[in-house]
Amino acid sequence: MQNFGCETLRVVNPYHVAFREAVSAVSAAPILKAAQEYPTVAEAVADCGLVVGTTSIGHRELQHPLVLLTSGARLIRKEMSTNKVGIVFGSEKFGLSNEDLSHCQRLMRIPTVDQKRSMNLGQAVAVCLYEIARKPVQAPAPSTFKPATMGEVEQITQMLLEAGRRSGYVNPVVGTSTENKVRRMVRRLRITGRDVSMWLGILRQILWKLDGNSK
Amino acid sequence: MQNFGCETLRVVNPYHVAFREAVSAVSAAPILKAAQEYPTVAEAVADCGLVVGTTSIGHRELQHPLVLLTSGARLIRKEMSTNKVGIVFGSEKFGLSNEDLSHCQRLMRIPTVDQKRSMNLGQAVAVCLYEIARKPVQAPAPSTFKPATMGEVEQITQMLLEAGRRSGYVNPVVGTSTENKVRRMVRRLRITGRDVSMWLGILRQILWKLDGNSK
Repeated sequence: MQNFGCETLRVVNPYHVAFREAVSAVSAAPILKAAQEYPTVAEAVADCGLVVGTTSIGHRELQHPLVLLTSGARLIRKEMSTNKVGIVFGSEKFGLSNEDLSHCQRLMRIPTVDQKRSMNLGQAVAVCLYEIARKPVQAPAPSTFKPATMGEVEQITQMLLEAGRRSGYVNPVVGTSTENKVRRMVRRLRITGRDVSMWLGILRQILWKLDGNSK
Repeated sequence: MQNFGCETLRVVNPYHVAFREAVSAVSAAPILKAAQEYPTVAEAVADCGLVVGTTSIGHRELQHPLVLLTSGARLIRKEMSTNKVGIVFGSEKFGLSNEDLSHCQRLMRIPTVDQKRSMNLGQAVAVCLYEIARKPVQAPAPSTFKPATMGEVEQITQMLLEAGRRSGYVNPVVGTSTENKVRRMVRRLRITGRDVSMWLGILRQILWKLDGNSK
């Protein structure tokens, strides 16, 4: 990360003993020392305008727009001119879970020879950051609207899910997979920051009405 | 290496105990199991048509044509269509020595933010191989001559050095630095395979003559 000018490391729900040990080691790199811990992916990416998941393996159930690293990096450089971008890496062994991925708007693949073979985590990070850093961050297009932050998007998601629950759309038994589906769907919308309050207003009204009807 | 379709790992003069242990581990990757050990860089690159050294740090005494990874990779892909290419990595701590570098024709730099900071070896390898593998190997230009192998180039170097010694050009006291200089100079020539025997013939004749005169 330091080699390619990337400064903020956020760690989601790490194995506590090992993580504390690594961070407090005398030889720990400044980036690791300053690493921020989050209990969930949602909280870790809440202030980002774009969230991109990564994989080196052909993902089993592909429910995301999948781009190759080169075009993903172009997208990220474009977004970086105006917003924070979160790049999400999974563990070496299991990669990102469907729940993790539901917080991402895109999935980016490192082109490798054998798509069934996973990649060393540090090497995957290095390759991604090298590709992103190879060209300067693009100047923002003058007319684009700022996207909603992931925190706002998650707020909309939660209200929509609540509406689904109250209206009987979300079946509590298969709730988790529906939740991930809805989360991905909302992220595909690319809601702009100026539309957030209108979305929240509509949903609040619906929830209020659903609540009244269920009584 | 396996992620990017690179198959042959050659290790020069490794710390024997640790290396044997790593190679014979049950979990060792096939590439590591098949790793070939060489006592010197010269022997490790003897069958290569192009040898490229790597660095992520601005090298102190720059005595090599230094190219950025992108152009280095282009050069390597071009050469790979007809010849073996050796990419030489040094240790994380010290990088490549001047003696190691004297066996290289080019020095390739991974563009990093802080040029004084070294890079993790595995990550450096991953980034280089990713860049090389991003495009297919180029078809050979129909009219180019095959270059001499590094083994042949080193043979010419040794005879030239011997001629230097016998003629008094090479001072035995500062011998090593002169040797590296001459080695680099010969590698800049890019001698073609069809010229090797003529070079060797001329040098053999000179050595014979020098021998006669020194008696």
